[in-house]
Amino acid sequence: MMRRRLLAEAIGSFFLFACVIGSGIMAETLAGGNVAIALLGNTLATGAILAVLIAMLGPISGAHFNPAVTLAFRLRGEIATKEALLFVAVQLAAGIIGVWAAHAMFDQPLMQYSIKPRTGAGQWLGEAIATFGLVLTILGTIKVNKAWVPASVGLYISAAYWFTSSTSFANPAITVARSLSNTFAGIAPVDVGGFVLAQFVGAVIAVWVAKWLYEGTR
Amino acid sequence: MMRRRLLAEAIGSFFLFACVIGSGIMAETLAGGNVAIALLGNTLATGAILAVLIAMLGPISGAHFNPAVTLAFRLRGEIATKEALLFVAVQLAAGIIGVWAAHAMFDQPLMQYSIKPRTGAGQWLGEAIATFGLVLTILGTIKVNKAWVPASVGLYISAAYWFTSSTSFANPAITVARSLSNTFAGIAPVDVGGFVLAQFVGAVIAVWVAKWLYEGTR
Amino acid sequence: MMRRRLLAEAIGSFFLFACVIGSGIMAETLAGGNVAIALLGNTLATGAILAVLIAMLGPISGAHFNPAVTLAFRLRGEIATKEALLFVAVQLAAGIIGVWAAHAMFDQPLMQYSIKPRTGAGQWLGEAIATFGLVLTILGTIKVNKAWVPASVGLYISAAYWFTSSTSFANPAITVARSLSNTFAGIAPVDVGGFVLAQFVGAVIAVWVAKWLYEGTR
Amino acid sequence: MMRRRLLAEAIGSFFLFACVIGSGIMAETLAGGNVAIALLGNTLATGAILAVLIAMLGPISGAHFNPAVTLAFRLRGEIATKEALLFVAVQLAAGIIGVWAAHAMFDQPLMQYSIKPRTGAGQWLGEAIATFGLVLTILGTIKVNKAWVPASVGLYISAAYWFTSSTSFANPAITVARSLSNTFAGIAPVDVGGFVLAQFVGAVIAVWVAKWLYEGTR
Repeated sequence: MMRRRLLAEAIGSFFLFACVIGSGIMAETLAGGNVAIALLGNTLATGAILAVLIAMLGPISGAHFNPAVTLAFRLRGEIATKEALLFVAVQLAAGIIGVWAAHAMFDQPLMQYSIKPRTGAGQWLGEAIATFGLVLTILGTIKVNKAWVPASVGLYISAAYWFTSSTSFANPAITVARSLSNTFAGIAPVDVGGFVLAQFVGAVIAVWVAKWLYEGTR
Repeated sequence: MMRRRLLAEAIGSFFLFACVIGSGIMAETLAGGNVAIALLGNTLATGAILAVLIAMLGPISGAHFNPAVTLAFRLRGEIATKEALLFVAVQLAAGIIGVWAAHAMFDQPLMQYSIKPRTGAGQWLGEAIATFGLVLTILGTIKVNKAWVPASVGLYISAAYWFTSSTSFANPAITVARSLSNTFAGIAPVDVGGFVLAQFVGAVIAVWVAKWLYEGTR
Repeated sequence: MMRRRLLAEAIGSFFLFACVIGSGIMAETLAGGNVAIALLGNTLATGAILAVLIAMLGPISGAHFNPAVTLAFRLRGEIATKEALLFVAVQLAAGIIGVWAAHAMFDQPLMQYSIKPRTGAGQWLGEAIATFGLVLTILGTIKVNKAWVPASVGLYISAAYWFTSSTSFANPAITVARSLSNTFAGIAPVDVGGFVLAQFVGAVIAVWVAKWLYEGTR
Repeated sequence: MMRRRLLAEAIGSFFLFACVIGSGIMAETLAGGNVAIALLGNTLATGAILAVLIAMLGPISGAHFNPAVTLAFRLRGEIATKEALLFVAVQLAAGIIGVWAAHAMFDQPLMQYSIKPRTGAGQWLGEAIATFGLVLTILGTIKVNKAWVPASVGLYISAAYWFTSSTSFANPAITVARSLSNTFAGIAPVDVGGFVLAQFVGAVIAVWVAKWLYEGTR
């Protein structure tokens, strides 16, 4: 059973990360310099694949694909520490393979490092709010509207790509993986730390708010 | 229980208003002067977040995030006057904090006043029709197709952003909040009154039509 | 009961037609000459409002808003002739008021006549195929996947706006109404006849195919 | 019963292929050289019609419209060899008629051959990954989230149009049919073989992975 759960996390992270990077490359290549059009393509692809992956893999592994989400479930005691660590390892490994697959599909060098700076208080606030909203969406929707979870997460990220200044990475594993791609969706390795820290802060606050909001306990 | 309902209204209004303003800033910044592309981004983000927030918060507070909607439920006797007033206060306060959060994320000054004129009979008619349609959508869908409420409201606003000349604010609290942002989604403070009046007119008519259409009573 | 059904058809036709015209005006005004971007806005708005209106009004009147659909249900014996005629009259009247409301919202003269030619064998084939697909979608989805009807119709028209050369009017009442608007979605009055004829041909064939496909009878 | 299943495959393949080609022509004609905007229109139309066709025809024939999907069900023993062969023949024949219908609607010569090269290891990898993901989405979602199948397939293809370098044909019949259209969605006949081979490889691997992931067997 555990092996199937890990395989589900691997497949989901592979497709999610390949989609974020691949659709970014496609969008930037075709958009001829209009970044808003590129972001529209990147948004539609990412939101769509997220909903699909959660619908098909959620019943197997919970469809985390995201260490901040795995942390949230660990804090709630819904996943064991050992399994959580394996989840995160698989998310990172399979996700990076997804990034390389995107590079290979688009005839780019596999190994890259982004030079795109993404830093500053505004963007860190963006990542904290984005991840807070993502984790609260997941915990809340599971509780009160379970059939809506795949749609909600896909739609939430679609919105957050536009309303946060950082375009809402909201996922520590994808932040690391995106530092390995010098393309539309990239982030310079030196800026990864700030993003990841902000993401974990947002996730922890969301766990605490969800407890009070959905269970009336603190 | 009341506290949890107010918290739900606060969180929803925060994210809704931050999304309207933030995605407007992002869209205008990236679109390079093509306003239709900017409105596409603004529309997708707003429609998406609305559906998500209603799916996750509707079962807690009803997911109003809108004084015109709260008024409609008050007229129907489904919320007490005192609670309705608290709802509106929270919608305004948390919504304005959402606007400021959007400003902070995009490294803009927190306090702003819009200079964008939005006035005239055409736009007031737009707001009345937009709010009439929004309230009728909510009351009707709750009655005959409850599972569709989150999708319906998100889709309705997505359409109304395009088919009304005012881009469908349809929400007195968001109208006030948008006057505090000199960005894509702004409205000059002097023009707030006309919009809000038209919105309440549309909401009241919708309550009356819904009674007849869905309950066969007048 | 009949009055409520007619009111539902009136409200639905009003919003549908106002949306087709209004979003066309908005899209063309903002798109700066890029017709593909204008059609994207027009498509999103029309598909979205259709799904909403069917979700909220379908359980009252069946949510036809379209004489070709009313004809299909008449041919199947699911609506009486007298009621069908009233439906069509209301669709036309309320729909034209919707067109005028769009004009009023956008500060345009109420009474207009389109000068946009839409004619020729290719476009008539487009209308026949579009209406065939629309009616088959409705009859089939009602039969085998009822909860999907609102989404299916909205998505079908969204697709058909792009894959038919005529941008898929697929509705005789909306064809007449669009001849009264010299805007993006208009059609010259002289070209209405060809479109409407092709639409009815498509609808009748769809009724016959649906009978065989979904009921195994001819 | 078999005849109705074949008719369902014919209608679905006709509309799917007409939509892929027709929306490509419309999008390219209107987009004025901005290929990203053209791909947005093509994506929305294709994803939308797929969801509709699966919702309305899935309960009749399974809604394959795709020899790689039919092969997957044959490998699983869920369709007989003879019926599978008839399915593929109907998909090809009705699909090609759909392509010709698109040409006729847009006043183009019926018979065309594409001159657009689509080849190379990157694109073959794209097709293998795209088809692997499509078949896994179908098999997995049927198993764990059946109501989501129409939405999942439509959303998956919408994403895959953007994240694969080949824009995700993922369907041997549509690959052949697209070689008969010298338009936006075309592929040179000489490049069909490589695409189809990659698609079948992806499909076979997906059947094997799905067995292990969803049934715990190898």
